[in-house]
Amino acid sequence: MYSVTFLPDGATVEVAEGTSLLDAAAAAGVSIVNVCGGDGVCGKCRVIVKSGKVTAEPNMFLSRVDIQQGVALACTTYPDGDVVVEVPPESRIGGVPRLTSEDAIRYGRVTDQVGGGKPFRYCPLSRKQFLELGPPSADDNTSDQERVFRELRRAGCADVPIMQMGLSILRPLPALLREHDWQVTALLGWRNDTTEVVDIEPGDTSRANYGVAVDLGTTTVVAHLVDFRTSDTLATEAKYNSQAKIGEDVIARLMYASTPVRRNELRELMVGDVNELISGLILDAGIKLHDVTYVMCAGNTTMTHLLLGLDPSQIRLDPYVPAAALPPVVRAAEVGVSINPRGLLAALPSVSSYVGGDVLADVLVSGMTQTEDVSLLIDLGTNGELVLGNSDWLMCASASAGPAFEGGGISCGMRATTGALERIALGEGGRVDEYEVVGGVKPLGICGSGLIDVVGELLRVGCIDRTGNLIGDCCDGRVRTSEAGDREIVIFAAEETGAGRDIVISEADISNLIHTKGSIYMAAECLLDEVGLTFIDLANVYVAGGFGNYLKIDRAIGIGLLPDIPHEKFRFIGNGSVQGAKMAMLSEQAMTYVRERIAGAMTALELSTHHKYMNEYSSCLFLPHTDIERFPSVIARQAEGASAGEKKGDGSWLCESP
Amino acid sequence: MYSVTFLPDGATVEVAEGTSLLDAAAAAGVSIVNVCGGDGVCGKCRVIVKSGKVTAEPNMFLSRVDIQQGVALACTTYPDGDVVVEVPPESRIGGVPRLTSEDAIRYGRVTDQVGGGKPFRYCPLSRKQFLELGPPSADDNTSDQERVFRELRRAGCADVPIMQMGLSILRPLPALLREHDWQVTALLGWRNDTTEVVDIEPGDTSRANYGVAVDLGTTTVVAHLVDFRTSDTLATEAKYNSQAKIGEDVIARLMYASTPVRRNELRELMVGDVNELISGLILDAGIKLHDVTYVMCAGNTTMTHLLLGLDPSQIRLDPYVPAAALPPVVRAAEVGVSINPRGLLAALPSVSSYVGGDVLADVLVSGMTQTEDVSLLIDLGTNGELVLGNSDWLMCASASAGPAFEGGGISCGMRATTGALERIALGEGGRVDEYEVVGGVKPLGICGSGLIDVVGELLRVGCIDRTGNLIGDCCDGRVRTSEAGDREIVIFAAEETGAGRDIVISEADISNLIHTKGSIYMAAECLLDEVGLTFIDLANVYVAGGFGNYLKIDRAIGIGLLPDIPHEKFRFIGNGSVQGAKMAMLSEQAMTYVRERIAGAMTALELSTHHKYMNEYSSCLFLPHTDIERFPSVIARQAEGASAGEKKGDGSWLCESP
Repeated sequence: MYSVTFLPDGATVEVAEGTSLLDAAAAAGVSIVNVCGGDGVCGKCRVIVKSGKVTAEPNMFLSRVDIQQGVALACTTYPDGDVVVEVPPESRIGGVPRLTSEDAIRYGRVTDQVGGGKPFRYCPLSRKQFLELGPPSADDNTSDQERVFRELRRAGCADVPIMQMGLSILRPLPALLREHDWQVTALLGWRNDTTEVVDIEPGDTSRANYGVAVDLGTTTVVAHLVDFRTSDTLATEAKYNSQAKIGEDVIARLMYASTPVRRNELRELMVGDVNELISGLILDAGIKLHDVTYVMCAGNTTMTHLLLGLDPSQIRLDPYVPAAALPPVVRAAEVGVSINPRGLLAALPSVSSYVGGDVLADVLVSGMTQTEDVSLLIDLGTNGELVLGNSDWLMCASASAGPAFEGGGISCGMRATTGALERIALGEGGRVDEYEVVGGVKPLGICGSGLIDVVGELLRVGCIDRTGNLIGDCCDGRVRTSEAGDREIVIFAAEETGAGRDIVISEADISNLIHTKGSIYMAAECLLDEVGLTFIDLANVYVAGGFGNYLKIDRAIGIGLLPDIPHEKFRFIGNGSVQGAKMAMLSEQAMTYVRERIAGAMTALELSTHHKYMNEYSSCLFLPHTDIERFPSVIARQAEGASAGEKKGDGSWLCESP
Repeated sequence: MYSVTFLPDGATVEVAEGTSLLDAAAAAGVSIVNVCGGDGVCGKCRVIVKSGKVTAEPNMFLSRVDIQQGVALACTTYPDGDVVVEVPPESRIGGVPRLTSEDAIRYGRVTDQVGGGKPFRYCPLSRKQFLELGPPSADDNTSDQERVFRELRRAGCADVPIMQMGLSILRPLPALLREHDWQVTALLGWRNDTTEVVDIEPGDTSRANYGVAVDLGTTTVVAHLVDFRTSDTLATEAKYNSQAKIGEDVIARLMYASTPVRRNELRELMVGDVNELISGLILDAGIKLHDVTYVMCAGNTTMTHLLLGLDPSQIRLDPYVPAAALPPVVRAAEVGVSINPRGLLAALPSVSSYVGGDVLADVLVSGMTQTEDVSLLIDLGTNGELVLGNSDWLMCASASAGPAFEGGGISCGMRATTGALERIALGEGGRVDEYEVVGGVKPLGICGSGLIDVVGELLRVGCIDRTGNLIGDCCDGRVRTSEAGDREIVIFAAEETGAGRDIVISEADISNLIHTKGSIYMAAECLLDEVGLTFIDLANVYVAGGFGNYLKIDRAIGIGLLPDIPHEKFRFIGNGSVQGAKMAMLSEQAMTYVRERIAGAMTALELSTHHKYMNEYSSCLFLPHTDIERFPSVIARQAEGASAGEKKGDGSWLCESP
């Protein structure tokens, strides 16, 4: 057994020979970023061996300098004795994701949809109803249970066809009613097509009833606390999904989830996150956990399965069958989520293994199904999800976009947490003119919006050509070839950064972004093509995903991620997942609408076997596109810039690669 | 602490000073009959002190001879040192109640009603459906849960509007389906208006699916095992309700059930009985407990509350409000009933505190609601329950009949178990001509049907007059005055009996029976009067209650228990409670019918405040009635007997009391 100590935490763990530093870190409770699930192929789990001897498998992610400085990949490095290991900031899971308060206050009425249309009726899935029952008499000696049911119906819950009350509520009921002068508060909870009297509390407690809407993101878990009485959002919290220590993407977690024990482990990680968020929410809002009575989750099909402890193993195997598309409403305690002990937990339904509740939530929030005009919805999450349609039909596709927007597969990529470069303006030769870093610290890496900015600016100032190749002559000596043989441009030198190493963009990074944006653009085009439409026919383009809020439309059009249509057609939804969960939690009508109208109308277009996608994908692998005529505003801006002669190197817009 | 040993069991227990022998017996696990709940007012808990000293409170039930022989009432006798006590056979709870196999085979089709009418559709509350799902494909990759639901609908469960599946079934589902070639059996259970996929088993197990119908009688608990596939009754079991050790009647148990701990005790006693019966049933039938998937109970409102652990304390308090009239369907394990661990348990609804599921079951079985003809139903259980009505209306009443038919309040009364006199023919002077005893042993006492026989015969042969007074001159020297001052007639001398003491009928016993039969007759008359009808308008009289099977119509008419209408109008239902539970368990339509049509149509007539009942009750306190013209067949038989000169003392029919 060797002792492994992790800095700066100081956590120490004893491990057997042959245990990787990544596993040792997990055992020590230290979370290290790893996108690939520990297979040594993502290069994200960089650690620095400060003392002691290790054996490391060879890899292509570390430079000679790295190795001289003791940098190692935790997943393929094994201690040969007691060691001390430092986990640098960019390798750490943790910190707090950016959370826009904008999301919480975005909607004047939470049941409104972005795109207008008739708001859903306010009828929350959890209701507290104060009942003044009055004592029974000889003329009115119906049972206590029926008296409660009857009064509930009179009090406006008449729309509840099937009302049920469990033994644990019924048993103390007669004493409770009589001890409290027949004045009690009934807590009603929606359970699919039935309503349960979840609890009965003495006196009037109807003022205190709260729900939590949760976005079960693969990367980020976001929770909003809602007051059921007013529909106000009282607090918001977010954290990174702790399952990332098992694997950063869905596939890695699906592969891990092969046994009940491991599924339970994944469930506990996610439930731990949800509980941590709820604890934070109730502290923020100063309310009691007992008064949180409902949790509504939206997530992709895999995340929903993992939260509920369902077997997801068929999701990644042909023909991609989930265990349940419409999971049952359960008592939150049954899956380990801590709210009122009798409180309920529901999840938005899925359509299939790859069209989950998060996408349905986006559609709900967009309101795109409330009009005959055709709209396109793009969710720029860990996966790129697209939905095209209107009130009559919906078609969706998953663009195998890859995690570039989450920092995955980008040499200095990172998530949008403290230290992430999120905005940049470059000048001549790729010199940094202005930039913004999350948290206002020195940059540690580049997040999704920063990546689009950097590449857009490199293109604009002529450091790269339209294929994404670096044009050395235009880069003021900033271009170099890495030890691995990649050409890369230094954006920030080591001394300007918080990580103590250069922040670079390599041609491979640019290529990665081009593939990502290309697959999304192409997916949109295929969806349109399938119904004989083009971008010009779109009434709206909704951009969803927490990341979307930080996107500048012109930059995204500039690299060809979004189509070049009038800016006013773009609408940001923000985190549609948590917002849709919230709408469904506040409106049974919205919940039913998701299930029957949205999920029911959705057809999926499989792109991996789609001829147009296969044949024309390569045409998108330019900045912004092979056919630049499709991007007239880019041409116009370019021309404008050229005529104004604002900047040197403007001509690069029309440069072709050598 | 004193040691108390009970014979013949040999059970010994240590008790503190001041503990009654009744409580000591309960602690020793020896069950002693006590009708009054230990208040010293029923005189049923006779024991014989064989050695040791005791202190006994004075009472009026024991003769000097009794006391000389060491007889004591267990409830008011306290050991003053170590004692040995014998519990004589007539004081013991136990033995096995008579169970007519007749009940089990009575109905060719169990969903038929006695009174004819359209049979209920066979659609049991528990169904097993074998599913050959076939593997999913790219064209058909719906979720596993939806695949099961879809196939269930295709397989004829299309009438199920709301189908639910819990997490514990969903979690192992994907592996189960794939390991068993997509061939599984779904177990569906009815839960009020929803259907639960209760379990999914590998392969085809649809042949093995059984249910248990239970009559939760105050005195006797009866259970029938039903094959859900064929609707055959495979086995029947009965036992005395173990709650009798707390108190023999409903009121005593209600008074005891004042705290959650005591309610739990009562629940455990009843659940223990149900479990014991189920064990017996599956042994009899040679099936596995796992394959018993549903339990349907029918009982009065109190018994249903006690089984489910509901608080019954308001049932006996003005204005008599039960906790729940339609109790929830629960997992049997939730109340402690052992069947398939996921199996369900339901109870027939009640109408009010005093109109329970047992009465609704009787009505269901009778079929009286399927015709416009007006019928009367009389349930001669521990309480006398009556229902009058037809397809349009139902009116019920509880005759405060008292437990005379169960042996309560009768000096030598006992339940219809081994040793009970059930039939008798008397000759001149009250001499016993012929008799039958349950089990063919020497008589220990007199059960309900025996009591009616004895009194009817005493009247017929002239030993008593129409007020129930013994006519000493006609009794061949068999009449004596007891120490307590009661006049009584010896039916069997001590040496002819199994108890070693005379079996007698006292004038108090006869008066007790007269009050019982009078209250039932009067209740029937009041019900009829309420709707402006008389006995002549009745199309049918249904007699329910296990006891009813042993009743001879002419004897019951002879004492004025039943109205004097043509014999062919009388129909025996037998144990309508267990039979109705069975029908409801085998037909969701019947269950719904009970809830909506029978319970919904039922109004209750409160006799205790009913002017006619109060004013005319005393007219029933004759044998058969003050107005003998109402009993023309009795007059006719009397006249017939007189003209034939068959027996001496025939003239007594017209004797008035001195």
